Amino acid sequence: MANQQKKVSDAVIKRLPRYFRYLADLKENNVLRISSKALSEKMGFTASQIRQDLSCFGGFGQQGYGYNVESLYSELKKILGVNKSFGIIIIGAGNLGQAIANYGKFEKRGYFLKGIFDVNKDLIGNKIDGVDIMTMDSLPEFLKNNHVDIAVLTVPRNVTTVVAEDIVKLGIKGIWNFSAMDIKVPDDVEVENVHLSDSIMVLGYKIKNN
Amino acid sequence: MANQQKKVSDAVIKRLPRYFRYLADLKENNVLRISSKALSEKMGFTASQIRQDLSCFGGFGQQGYGYNVESLYSELKKILGVNKSFGIIIIGAGNLGQAIANYGKFEKRGYFLKGIFDVNKDLIGNKIDGVDIMTMDSLPEFLKNNHVDIAVLTVPRNVTTVVAEDIVKLGIKGIWNFSAMDIKVPDDVEVENVHLSDSIMVLGYKIKNN
Repeated sequence: MANQQKKVSDAVIKRLPRYFRYLADLKENNVLRISSKALSEKMGFTASQIRQDLSCFGGFGQQGYGYNVESLYSELKKILGVNKSFGIIIIGAGNLGQAIANYGKFEKRGYFLKGIFDVNKDLIGNKIDGVDIMTMDSLPEFLKNNHVDIAVLTVPRNVTTVVAEDIVKLGIKGIWNFSAMDIKVPDDVEVENVHLSDSIMVLGYKIKNN
Repeated sequence: MANQQKKVSDAVIKRLPRYFRYLADLKENNVLRISSKALSEKMGFTASQIRQDLSCFGGFGQQGYGYNVESLYSELKKILGVNKSFGIIIIGAGNLGQAIANYGKFEKRGYFLKGIFDVNKDLIGNKIDGVDIMTMDSLPEFLKNNHVDIAVLTVPRNVTTVVAEDIVKLGIKGIWNFSAMDIKVPDDVEVENVHLSDSIMVLGYKIKNN
């Protein structure tokens, strides 16, 4: 199964959380089963894409019956690692870092904020949502004593590369990168980018050309 | 040209801001020209993809010479509408809305924040980065008197659909949607989603399966 999952394309992986959200809603509304056609109408994907996507993970649908909502939900939860617990730190306690620290919606998905780090000495000692803001110098020691899977990078663009290199050396295996800068990492480190400026420029382009 | 641009695929459009960022860096470093091969090494796309992407917009490269950085930059700037000015409002002045209001990096791309709206009466009358937080009730009047292209939706999930319907009725043509909820809009309205929970779940999946 682990091997099978490795072959799943990035495009499918990117759609998984969306399936998970819709299944969670259906479950909450006590829907027991749903056909790929009905799911397709809700989600805006074609039914055949849905069948194909979900078959990458073993295909849980039954002809003429559809998908069992509860078991598809549980399966997606397992696949996405929502039942696993991930430790997170935030590097860069500016507006965006603080907003993410305050966001609070990640915990129910299994993502737990363990520390916030910044170079600005005025912030050190403050807490956000009960979590300490610490100096960057204390990061190596902190990582020795705490299990951290993901570093959220909300640092200025010009220091992104240096900070990314440093945290990779310290053993971080996942980077959630919010800076407007792409980063290069070794193969055993995963990066997910949220480039806000890119996103708004795409929207601007679409509005201009609609 | 306008017609030609309409045919450009979403995948290409999503890559445009990235080209723009790299070209801006090259320009800043006084690089005058660059081959698709050299750009490919920097950006991690193949040279042939770069040539293909940029040819969608008329193809500015010259065989054996490469791309003229300055003119490709200017062209991308025009294509992305960076020389145009977009009016923005933020709906939902919670942590995420406040972070975006404070972000401040959109102005140099031509995106100007004009107002922030919320239902929480305690926030009304405050300013973020010089911009007023106003009551949702005042939105229709505000939109009559101000040119607004984009509404940033940072509202709770359960009110997303209603708020989106309301602002579309009020004539908003672009929605930057940060809520963990997909929205349906008429064809003449564009939506760009930033689903933070989806993004971190994709990262978790990749770490788990690396």
